[in-house]
Amino acid sequence: MERPRHQGMAKNTYMRWRLPLVCLLWEVAMIVLFGVFVRFSPEADAHWEEEKREMNLTSDIENDFYFRYPSFQDVHVMIFVGFGFLMTFLKRYGFGAVGFNFLLAAFGIQWALLMQGWFHSFKSGKILIGVENLINADFCVGSVCIAFGAILGKTSPIQLLVMTLFQVTLFAVNEYILLNLLHVKDAGGSMTIHTFGAYFGLTVTRILYRPNLEQSKEKQGSVYHSDLFAMIGTLYLWMYWPSFNSAISDHGDAQHRAAINTYCSLAACVLTTVAFSSMLQKKGKLDMVHIQNATLAGGVAVGTSAEMMLTPYGSLIVGFICGIVSTVGYVYLTPFLESRLHIQDTCGIHNLHAMPGLIGGIVGAITAAAATEDVYGKEGFIKTFDFTGEYQTRTPSVQGGFQAAGIMVSLLIAFAGGAIVGAILKLPIWGDAAAENCFEDDVYWEVPEDEESEVYHMHNPDKPASP
Amino acid sequence: MERPRHQGMAKNTYMRWRLPLVCLLWEVAMIVLFGVFVRFSPEADAHWEEEKREMNLTSDIENDFYFRYPSFQDVHVMIFVGFGFLMTFLKRYGFGAVGFNFLLAAFGIQWALLMQGWFHSFKSGKILIGVENLINADFCVGSVCIAFGAILGKTSPIQLLVMTLFQVTLFAVNEYILLNLLHVKDAGGSMTIHTFGAYFGLTVTRILYRPNLEQSKEKQGSVYHSDLFAMIGTLYLWMYWPSFNSAISDHGDAQHRAAINTYCSLAACVLTTVAFSSMLQKKGKLDMVHIQNATLAGGVAVGTSAEMMLTPYGSLIVGFICGIVSTVGYVYLTPFLESRLHIQDTCGIHNLHAMPGLIGGIVGAITAAAATEDVYGKEGFIKTFDFTGEYQTRTPSVQGGFQAAGIMVSLLIAFAGGAIVGAILKLPIWGDAAAENCFEDDVYWEVPEDEESEVYHMHNPDKPASP
Amino acid sequence: MERPRHQGMAKNTYMRWRLPLVCLLWEVAMIVLFGVFVRFSPEADAHWEEEKREMNLTSDIENDFYFRYPSFQDVHVMIFVGFGFLMTFLKRYGFGAVGFNFLLAAFGIQWALLMQGWFHSFKSGKILIGVENLINADFCVGSVCIAFGAILGKTSPIQLLVMTLFQVTLFAVNEYILLNLLHVKDAGGSMTIHTFGAYFGLTVTRILYRPNLEQSKEKQGSVYHSDLFAMIGTLYLWMYWPSFNSAISDHGDAQHRAAINTYCSLAACVLTTVAFSSMLQKKGKLDMVHIQNATLAGGVAVGTSAEMMLTPYGSLIVGFICGIVSTVGYVYLTPFLESRLHIQDTCGIHNLHAMPGLIGGIVGAITAAAATEDVYGKEGFIKTFDFTGEYQTRTPSVQGGFQAAGIMVSLLIAFAGGAIVGAILKLPIWGDAAAENCFEDDVYWEVPEDEESEVYHMHNPDKPASP
Repeated sequence: MERPRHQGMAKNTYMRWRLPLVCLLWEVAMIVLFGVFVRFSPEADAHWEEEKREMNLTSDIENDFYFRYPSFQDVHVMIFVGFGFLMTFLKRYGFGAVGFNFLLAAFGIQWALLMQGWFHSFKSGKILIGVENLINADFCVGSVCIAFGAILGKTSPIQLLVMTLFQVTLFAVNEYILLNLLHVKDAGGSMTIHTFGAYFGLTVTRILYRPNLEQSKEKQGSVYHSDLFAMIGTLYLWMYWPSFNSAISDHGDAQHRAAINTYCSLAACVLTTVAFSSMLQKKGKLDMVHIQNATLAGGVAVGTSAEMMLTPYGSLIVGFICGIVSTVGYVYLTPFLESRLHIQDTCGIHNLHAMPGLIGGIVGAITAAAATEDVYGKEGFIKTFDFTGEYQTRTPSVQGGFQAAGIMVSLLIAFAGGAIVGAILKLPIWGDAAAENCFEDDVYWEVPEDEESEVYHMHNPDKPASP
Repeated sequence: MERPRHQGMAKNTYMRWRLPLVCLLWEVAMIVLFGVFVRFSPEADAHWEEEKREMNLTSDIENDFYFRYPSFQDVHVMIFVGFGFLMTFLKRYGFGAVGFNFLLAAFGIQWALLMQGWFHSFKSGKILIGVENLINADFCVGSVCIAFGAILGKTSPIQLLVMTLFQVTLFAVNEYILLNLLHVKDAGGSMTIHTFGAYFGLTVTRILYRPNLEQSKEKQGSVYHSDLFAMIGTLYLWMYWPSFNSAISDHGDAQHRAAINTYCSLAACVLTTVAFSSMLQKKGKLDMVHIQNATLAGGVAVGTSAEMMLTPYGSLIVGFICGIVSTVGYVYLTPFLESRLHIQDTCGIHNLHAMPGLIGGIVGAITAAAATEDVYGKEGFIKTFDFTGEYQTRTPSVQGGFQAAGIMVSLLIAFAGGAIVGAILKLPIWGDAAAENCFEDDVYWEVPEDEESEVYHMHNPDKPASP
Repeated sequence: MERPRHQGMAKNTYMRWRLPLVCLLWEVAMIVLFGVFVRFSPEADAHWEEEKREMNLTSDIENDFYFRYPSFQDVHVMIFVGFGFLMTFLKRYGFGAVGFNFLLAAFGIQWALLMQGWFHSFKSGKILIGVENLINADFCVGSVCIAFGAILGKTSPIQLLVMTLFQVTLFAVNEYILLNLLHVKDAGGSMTIHTFGAYFGLTVTRILYRPNLEQSKEKQGSVYHSDLFAMIGTLYLWMYWPSFNSAISDHGDAQHRAAINTYCSLAACVLTTVAFSSMLQKKGKLDMVHIQNATLAGGVAVGTSAEMMLTPYGSLIVGFICGIVSTVGYVYLTPFLESRLHIQDTCGIHNLHAMPGLIGGIVGAITAAAATEDVYGKEGFIKTFDFTGEYQTRTPSVQGGFQAAGIMVSLLIAFAGGAIVGAILKLPIWGDAAAENCFEDDVYWEVPEDEESEVYHMHNPDKPASP
């Protein structure tokens, strides 16, 4: 028999009481905390009619809902279908990819509403939530989905929930330091989502290093159909990324500009990915792994600067570079990281999120430092960088410096946090599978008897074909 | 040969003249009725410039199109991709699931535009349609898609069209009684769509009871890939449900609030579904059937109350409960319904739509009865429950009573209508397949020779491998 | 061995240096041209605050972004997921279908932004782009995706890029002649996108005629799963087509009306497609090819007239006819075109885009010719047909004549352009595959060892099953 089914022997992956307990207890905790803290923002509250009068708004269309809801839904699709299906490329881990991503994201958005709410939407003892909070919660969870990519196939659902709990917390802290203390701009999250999420995940997978993982090497590949499922994820991420980077920008030109910059960067990225995918393969054939992943690097890398005056050609240049960096990373860096640094990165998030995230942070710092009142207009300059109140006198070059500091802080918290969380996840109580059972849905899922099993029976022509 | 192909012998499933005749005649009828009755609403008519002046609107953005079109498209995706792919879980009924859902929905939306139009948008002899009518037509068809889930794999396309014709008609009547006569609120359709659709479908499948269905039991399961296709349906339903429940709410805070409540309920529902899926299985493994279905119960169950001040924690509680109820239903109730009550429910709509729909109706009644001017604000209170005109003096507790009455009426019409329609569908003229050919696309579709057939040939190593 | 792998012998399909060179050089050219020419439109520029004051706009919601961005995203999905997955029906060409569509579209939108920009958005030496330009670029690329359908499986990625370069150029010229010189209305592109794109592609495939294509006939079919993947493409095209036809219409009623007309036409089209699919097959079974394609013809055929007062029943009639024409085309015309005219049309774009596109042009001409001030209102009449400035005195019947002329011009440019581009693509330097290797991903892609290969090994029970 080819698929080893003795995982129960090597390690205890029995989830029956542990997983339900965690899910139920944590959900009860969410209900209690929401009951104590969470209420509707004025724009979602039935008192809105009065609010509207006070704010002198003449139309319901001025409700933030209409500015952001379409983008929210696009982001929502990216988190659940985009990340979920992108990870279905493994031949026998489709249920885990889509299903565990679903589970951790559903928990994560609730915890993120609380954590981010305490930091950013806390008024007289209550967290007031509206559509922007939903987007931010999805963003926060996005960083967890990224980290999940590094450990895909090697962890139990409980480990994923534990990681989500801690990572969301650290995300909120890091985000607070960047946005509120350093007054950094990062609307598309190159630093807060991608750099943080990726280096956090890479640190976790380093700590969880499995020396015998080659025992399940055969399952760590794709089959023809699983690669097509993964392309569903890729395309939804690619198409909706302009919404991602513009979702929480200022109303008006900023959202508009962020979408255009992202569209351009992503388009350029596809061409250099294809070029290098073909160039780096002896026979010149294209590799689906690159098309599925490196084409997205352009979206990551304009996350900070998309709402700034990066300009369309600036975006093309960023996308051009990132397609190359990311593809080269898949070919040379991933094997190196695994063999030398013992970083087993299932989805190659180092190439798709870590490096492009860093580039995105740097591009953002440069774009900010290069800003002038001439290019932005006097009002636009102040509005884009929010140079008001105590930041009234901050200059672009100072802002660039703070942006750079934001990268460093994100890295620091990612490494430190990842190390601690990795150590917690290493405890032998979470029910992860043995090395030879990694990348196999059968461990945590009821898997239907399917064609493959019929195929199995045919290997043994003596036995009768069972139903 | 494993798949029986002698359906032609047992029953006449030949569609060549019957199906085209029904499709063409009915479509001609639609054209005639649309020609007589249907025109554009003022907001979609070229006279809008004048209308705008009369209504004192200063901007085109005030057109209802911009308030509702993004939600409409999300709902549209739910009906055609959501329901269609959710039902592809069967190993050999993917074409029928997606294709027949497509067919019945395409017919149903036309008939619904007429039926709902006569009841709600009829002015001086014409039905005036705009984007809200399109959403309502999709909603109405949603209830047919739900009923389709109960009889999936066991009926001919003609039966489905006949059922659609009657069910849309009854839906419109029930909706009219609830919304106009009882003045009930049900923006997300817990009662009108889910309770009505599910109990209608369950009654139909009871009438169509097939005692020998175990002959096709082997085909009534999934394979690995079909479960992934079904997850596409699940996720699109899950992600866009906030749009579903908010699509026809009042402009402004009501749409905003409905989306937030639904988002919260759905998130909680995922965690309790996972918990109980693992808990109720001996080996503690997760069951894809639960993840595909029970995770959606939270959306069903806030359909009535989402636009009210249910509050985020109230939504979490509803989602929490429904994930449990629905999963428990799949494990214990579905087998019971089949063996004892002879209700063969292919997709388990009793667990996903019927019970959560009832809960949704009850939650709506309670939330309405508990409403106070303090919580809603004086204006918000009147606006949310539409306590104007003849309903000016209705109190929350009376409203709660009428909401409860709405549940009863929906149930009554579903049972009575389902019984009559089931009897009609039982006539031996519609070309349904024999019991041993259920859940098999080959009956009504040209099915490509595929890998499976290659596999077949390999069972017979003596024969040469054919093309 | 069943799949021939000796393509390298017959023809040189080695892409290693040619493909990267083309991708990189062209992307560099894009960057240079964008650097010289492309800037943000006022609504996406940071100077928008000042612009807003000048234009007397009181709210950010008046930014064109909020009128068009949701439709843009729907169109974006149609181009990348819709066309991409629609073409995955081939059993062994899923990577090429989705992947090459991705590549050519990513390049095409950049080049289209430039070409269309020079013609339509050129101000004081700069192309100023906003969300409407993004939509138009996607539209332009849509015509290339259509042409790709005719040559699917028979061309190298370089050929596709070359074709994209030329076709986008010709598209922009044709569009300029129609919209600016002839002052023709064509918001949904029946003429500019579908008629032009399809006849261009058909001419190209005629020039590239492969007499020995029956050598890969076996691969030119679908398997069960590939047909389901294709249905993802079909449904997204079908659902979002109302957004396609309304995306660049005038704000307000025109967008609203275009969406309703398209919704109606598509619904009717499904029923006649099903009717004729069953009627034209001996056993009366439905053919997936028809359901996947002909159901969309209704969207194509109201592309010109959707924003006019076509009325809902007029739309039903158009959809009714096109479902029939398209399905009949698949059954009788496609084989005829191949055997007699040597037009090998892989996806049957003649039935889905060419004929419905022509019908769409004609319906548009008639609808325009029949327009009256009574039906449109005085202001609506002028606004809908843009009868201002030098066109102030144009009458509906004259407009109808110009619309008809637009069809002719589109056909002419498609035939002439297709012939020239076909001749260029026939040069033996682009690396296309030999006839026996068509419709096979293995030529240009690293294809994972999958179930099928396992199946292969089982044909040879003597050999050990390899990993």
